[in-house]
Amino acid sequence: MKIAIIGGTGPQGQGLALRFAKAGLEVFVGSRDPERAESTVSEVNSRLPIGSSNIVGMSNIDAIRAADEMVIFAVPWSGHNDTLNIIKKELSNKILVDIVVPLSENDPKKVDMPPEGSATEAAQAILGSEIPVVGALHNVSATTLSNLDWDINCDVLVCGNSLDARKKVIELIKKLNVKAYNVGDAQSARCVEALTPILIRLNISKMVPFSHSGIQIWAPDHK
Amino acid sequence: MKIAIIGGTGPQGQGLALRFAKAGLEVFVGSRDPERAESTVSEVNSRLPIGSSNIVGMSNIDAIRAADEMVIFAVPWSGHNDTLNIIKKELSNKILVDIVVPLSENDPKKVDMPPEGSATEAAQAILGSEIPVVGALHNVSATTLSNLDWDINCDVLVCGNSLDARKKVIELIKKLNVKAYNVGDAQSARCVEALTPILIRLNISKMVPFSHSGIQIWAPDHK
Repeated sequence: MKIAIIGGTGPQGQGLALRFAKAGLEVFVGSRDPERAESTVSEVNSRLPIGSSNIVGMSNIDAIRAADEMVIFAVPWSGHNDTLNIIKKELSNKILVDIVVPLSENDPKKVDMPPEGSATEAAQAILGSEIPVVGALHNVSATTLSNLDWDINCDVLVCGNSLDARKKVIELIKKLNVKAYNVGDAQSARCVEALTPILIRLNISKMVPFSHSGIQIWAPDHK
Repeated sequence: MKIAIIGGTGPQGQGLALRFAKAGLEVFVGSRDPERAESTVSEVNSRLPIGSSNIVGMSNIDAIRAADEMVIFAVPWSGHNDTLNIIKKELSNKILVDIVVPLSENDPKKVDMPPEGSATEAAQAILGSEIPVVGALHNVSATTLSNLDWDINCDVLVCGNSLDARKKVIELIKKLNVKAYNVGDAQSARCVEALTPILIRLNISKMVPFSHSGIQIWAPDHK
């Protein structure tokens, strides 16, 4: 299975590249600057255990072309809409997995949602109904992803308007040994994206004794 | 400690009355119809183990007057704003703990948020800045609350514009042996309230093997 990670040189993108390559997927990390992608990837590859797939760095467009279907979108929120407009015409027959959180510029403990309601909804508005957008992986800390010794301590909430695309993304995420749940259409991204600044707030709070927190779904018969 | 539960004859209100009375607090359950409060409460009292406090049923106004400070607001969303306008003048020197979720009338797997952004923000707009509103306890299932044999499997996310009021509500909730976290100002209620329909969706989904789900905050050093 071949996946692309657009904006994959940031901390979240690097962490996901590491985890998916460890799980045996071929990972194509894209960047606006292909040379930066190559140098970042060579460092990330050096941290992979024996038996992992190799990660390859290239331009965003080349990474999309190299993917079978799944394109993980991991740019900073400030570049979210502009980048989508640039890559849009390359995305036919792909699924965009939008992991971007519209953190407030002045306060990472808050979101500043776009008029569409969430990043996922903004992406779907730009791409139109032909290209499915699935929001996922917003709440997993980059630090957790990057520490291959740690289990990923965060369930993944998966939303988007196409049920079929959601199911495929859930299968993709389960390859990381993470629980992934279908939480409904793109409107649910207003909640899921906004969980991230809540976790950031807890991580930097003096009222709690932990950091790198995640969320988990729990039920009486599901410990 | 004496607390009021307004709209306390609904499933959520009854469950909270049961849990707080079991924890030894004096609980005054209010209803628009005092006779209904009395008959509901007599059934609820019969389920309390020996050593619990007694629950008393009365009108909403009398329940507020009987509370020291904490007034839990547990009406259906359809009556949220109207009831607040009726009880507003009784609330000086109290803290309103708003547990209401604006579930969509046509689909309990979605929220239909008010123009203020959330029920908590709508309540704060009605009550003005003198009476602190704290959003909390949205995500704990009524079924879980009502089964005294079950641990409450859901962390409570507490938000509101007054940090002092949030801290007091966190202390109140900890009396139920539940973890409660400060998740910021009232705007966070947009996320916290919207988690409830996500949990409802999971509970009724055929894709997961459980019901009565809750959410938990998890971190590597905090199992």
